[in-house]
Amino acid sequence: MANPSPGNSITLRVAAPSSFTATSELAAAVAAAGAAVTALDVTESHHETLVVDVTCNTTDEDHANRVKDALNALDGVTVQHVSDRTFLMHLGGKLEVVPKVALRNRDDLSRAYTPGVARVCLAIAEDPAAARNLTVKRNTIAVVTDGSAVLGLGNIGPAAALPVMEGKAALFKQFANVDAWPVCLDTQDTQDTEDIIKIVKALAPVYGGVNLEDIAAPRCFEIERRLRDELDIPVFHDDQHGTAIVTLAALVNALRVVDKKLSEVKIVVSGVGAAGSAIIQLLKAQGAQHIVAAGRSGAIHSGEKYDDEHRTWIAANTNEAGFSGTLHEALKGADVFIGVSAPHVIGEEQVASMAEKAIVFAMANPTPEIDPVIASKHAAVVATGRSDFPNQINNVLAFPGFFRGLLDAGASDIIPEMLVAAAEAIANRVADDELNASYIIPSVFDPHVAADVASAVAQAAAAASATAASAL
Amino acid sequence: MANPSPGNSITLRVAAPSSFTATSELAAAVAAAGAAVTALDVTESHHETLVVDVTCNTTDEDHANRVKDALNALDGVTVQHVSDRTFLMHLGGKLEVVPKVALRNRDDLSRAYTPGVARVCLAIAEDPAAARNLTVKRNTIAVVTDGSAVLGLGNIGPAAALPVMEGKAALFKQFANVDAWPVCLDTQDTQDTEDIIKIVKALAPVYGGVNLEDIAAPRCFEIERRLRDELDIPVFHDDQHGTAIVTLAALVNALRVVDKKLSEVKIVVSGVGAAGSAIIQLLKAQGAQHIVAAGRSGAIHSGEKYDDEHRTWIAANTNEAGFSGTLHEALKGADVFIGVSAPHVIGEEQVASMAEKAIVFAMANPTPEIDPVIASKHAAVVATGRSDFPNQINNVLAFPGFFRGLLDAGASDIIPEMLVAAAEAIANRVADDELNASYIIPSVFDPHVAADVASAVAQAAAAASATAASAL
Repeated sequence: MANPSPGNSITLRVAAPSSFTATSELAAAVAAAGAAVTALDVTESHHETLVVDVTCNTTDEDHANRVKDALNALDGVTVQHVSDRTFLMHLGGKLEVVPKVALRNRDDLSRAYTPGVARVCLAIAEDPAAARNLTVKRNTIAVVTDGSAVLGLGNIGPAAALPVMEGKAALFKQFANVDAWPVCLDTQDTQDTEDIIKIVKALAPVYGGVNLEDIAAPRCFEIERRLRDELDIPVFHDDQHGTAIVTLAALVNALRVVDKKLSEVKIVVSGVGAAGSAIIQLLKAQGAQHIVAAGRSGAIHSGEKYDDEHRTWIAANTNEAGFSGTLHEALKGADVFIGVSAPHVIGEEQVASMAEKAIVFAMANPTPEIDPVIASKHAAVVATGRSDFPNQINNVLAFPGFFRGLLDAGASDIIPEMLVAAAEAIANRVADDELNASYIIPSVFDPHVAADVASAVAQAAAAASATAASAL
Repeated sequence: MANPSPGNSITLRVAAPSSFTATSELAAAVAAAGAAVTALDVTESHHETLVVDVTCNTTDEDHANRVKDALNALDGVTVQHVSDRTFLMHLGGKLEVVPKVALRNRDDLSRAYTPGVARVCLAIAEDPAAARNLTVKRNTIAVVTDGSAVLGLGNIGPAAALPVMEGKAALFKQFANVDAWPVCLDTQDTQDTEDIIKIVKALAPVYGGVNLEDIAAPRCFEIERRLRDELDIPVFHDDQHGTAIVTLAALVNALRVVDKKLSEVKIVVSGVGAAGSAIIQLLKAQGAQHIVAAGRSGAIHSGEKYDDEHRTWIAANTNEAGFSGTLHEALKGADVFIGVSAPHVIGEEQVASMAEKAIVFAMANPTPEIDPVIASKHAAVVATGRSDFPNQINNVLAFPGFFRGLLDAGASDIIPEMLVAAAEAIANRVADDELNASYIIPSVFDPHVAADVASAVAQAAAAASATAASAL
C-alpha cells in the first residue's frame, strides 16, 4: 500500500554539472529510487553547473532520504537542500481572520467600532435573535476537538490536533463559504466530559453551529447528546454523521450497480465506534433489515451484556438471528461489508466467502481493512477512504454543504431527515449514465455537491418547521 | 455634545419632483434639520421625478426621524426608505475565516488535510513548541470577554458584546496583521472567575496571546493575574494596559508642551476601576510622585480601609499627604487631570481651580468628564477619547502593534518595560516640530505607529531575554 503520495512530496535543490542530459539523469535517478517526479525546474544555469529543483512524491521520510542519497551518488551531483512541501504549506498556519469591512478612515472606524457599534450592541441586547443577522454568528461554526482521537493517530492532544482542524476549517470555507474556527480544548487532564460540555456552551454566543471532531468514543456520544439538548444551535459529530451520510450515499449507488435492495441485503459492519454506530442507525432508518456489527471480540448480539449504551443499542437493534461468531464468520454469504475499523482485518478469503456481487467499503484510514485491489478480485464494488483508488468515501462530500444548509435555514437542531436528504443529494450527483462499479460517488471536487447538499438540508429543515407549525 | 456623527449615518432614499434645484433643496432641508450631508447621489432620473440617495450624519434615532419628517414635508417629496449605515455594515458580521493555502486539487488536499497533515500533527505531538511555526498559533490571539462591562454600556452579556470584539479583531488585522478571534463567554450565571480562567486555559492551544476586553472590575484583575501565572502565552487586559500605554504617551508629550516634569506635577486621577489602577501603576513606574486618585466617594487615602486589593494598593502607593477630600477639592492647584470615570464629573470651575498650564485628559466615553471646549478655556492641553476633538487618546494606537511585537518576539509574558517602550514609541511619533497643544498624540491612522510599537515591544522582550540569560 506504500505508494508515493503527494502528502509526502519533497523538493530537492540539486547542483549538477551542466550538460544536455543533466535533468533527465536526475529524473531517472529519482524514478529509479522509487519516487514519482512531479516537477523539475532549473533555477540557475551557469557555465559549468546547473541548480535544479526536483519535486517528487515519496512514501515516507526514509524513502525521502533514499532519494536524496540516490541523487548524491550521481557523479558531480550535490543535494543542497531538501524541503518538505507539506511542512512548507503549514508554516504560520493555514487560516487567517480577515475583516469583511474596510477601515480606511475615521468614518469607517466610527461605524465598525466605537461609537457606532454601541447601537448594534444594544440592538442585540434587546433582541438576542438579532445576533444571527448582525454578527459572525450568521455564518460561523466552531470545529471542536480535545485531540483524543485524531485521524488514525489516536490521542495526540489538542495542540497536535490543530493542523487537522485548520484544514477542516479551510475546507468549510473553500467548499461552502462557511467560516469555521478551530477550537482545540486542553481538557484531557480531567477526562471529564462535563468540562468540554461546559466550555462549548460558554463559547456558543459566537457560533451558529458546532462541528465535533476527533473526540474519542464513548465520550463523544455523551458530549454530542448533551450539547444537542442544551444548546440552541445545531451540533454535528462529523466522525459519526458525516461518515454515515457519505456511506449511505455510496451504498445507495452501489446497490443500484449490483441491483440489490437495501431492505434485503445482509450487511456486516466492522467497527462499533462512533462511525460504526452512526452508520448502523442511518442504514436502519433507511430500511436496512439485516445488519450484523462486529467489534474486536466478534459480533455484537443480544445474548451478551454490554457495558456501554451504544453496543447495547446495537445488540438490541441488529443481528436478529443472534449470530455470535467472528467477523470472518459473519461475512460468509454477506452482501455488503462496511469497514470503519482497522487495517487488514479481513483478507481475500473473506471477500471470496461473501455473496455474489458483493460490495466492500474498506474505509479505515490511511490503511483499509483490505487492499482494495485484492478485494476487487471477488467483490463487484469496492470503495475506500483513499484518494488513490476509485470510489473515495470522503466526509468532505458532506460536512461543508451540510453546515451551509443548517446556517442558511437558521436551524437550531439536526434531524434524521437532514442526514438522509444529504445522502440522497450526494448519491444523485452521480447520473444514471455515469454510474458504474468504479464511480458510485462523486469526486470531492465536484463543484455542485456542496450546494446540492445545502439545499437538501435546508429543505428538510423547512419541511420540519412546516410540520411543527401545522401541528400547533 | 450631541454633534451629528458618522456612527449615526443614515441614507434616505427620496423621490422628488424633477427640477434644476431639487437636489440642493433636499440638501438644504437636511441641513436645516441639523444633520450633516455627506453624500448625495441621484440613482434614478425620470421625466417628472428624481430618486436621490441622501446620506447624512445625525445625532441619534430621534434626530434621524426628524430629518425624515423634514424631507417628507417638502412639496412633492417622499422618503421611500431609510437605511442605517452602521447596521448595514454589520449585516452578517465583520470577520471571515479565510484559508491561506489554496485547495485546488487532490494534491493540495493531501498536503493541507489527510493524509499529509498527519505528519505535521506528529511533529507537534513530538515537539509542542513546533505549534508556533506550523499552526495559526504563530499569528493568532483571542479577544476574550464575558460582556460584563462593554464600552460604556455596562453588563450587556456576551452576545451583545460580539460586535465590539469583531471590530477589535478587524482593527488587529488592519493595523498590525494580527489574526484575532472573538471569544465571547457565556459564563456570567455563575459569576465565577474560575470558569473564565478554566475556559481560557482550555482554549490556549490555538492562540499565541490573549487580549482580555470589557470584563468588569474587580473580576478582571484576578482573571488577568491568574492567566498570566498559569499560561505560557502573554495575557493583556486592554482596558487596563492599553489605556495606560496611550495615556502615558499623551502625558509625556503634553508635559513637553507645558514644560513640566512628570516627577514634579500633581496628578489627579478620576476613576479607580481597571483603567485608573493601570494608569496609576504605569505613571508611578515612570517616576510620577504626586498622584491622588478619586472614586465616587472621594479621594483614596491611607486613612481608610478598602475591601478590594486595588484600592488598598492605591491608598498605600499614592496620596502621600493623606488628602481625604472630594475630587473637586483635589483638583485645586493640580497640574494634571486624568479622567477614566463618568460624564460631567467636573465643571469649568474645577478646571479653573487647577494650576497654571493645566493638562486635562477627559477620557470617559462617549461623553467626557467635561466638555473639552469648556475645559480648554482654562487648561493648556485638553485631550479626550473622542475622534471629533483634537488629541484623541485611543487604545487603537497601542494594542495592534503591542501584540504584533509580542507575537514577533514569541513572548510568553508581558513585562512593564514593554508597556513603557510602547508608550515611548507612540509619543515619539509626534516630532518636535509637530508637537503643540492640539497635537500631542499621533492619529490612529498614522501608518507607522503599529510598526514602531511592535518593534519597541519586541526589543524590550529581547532585552529581557538577554538579561535573563546573562543572569543564569
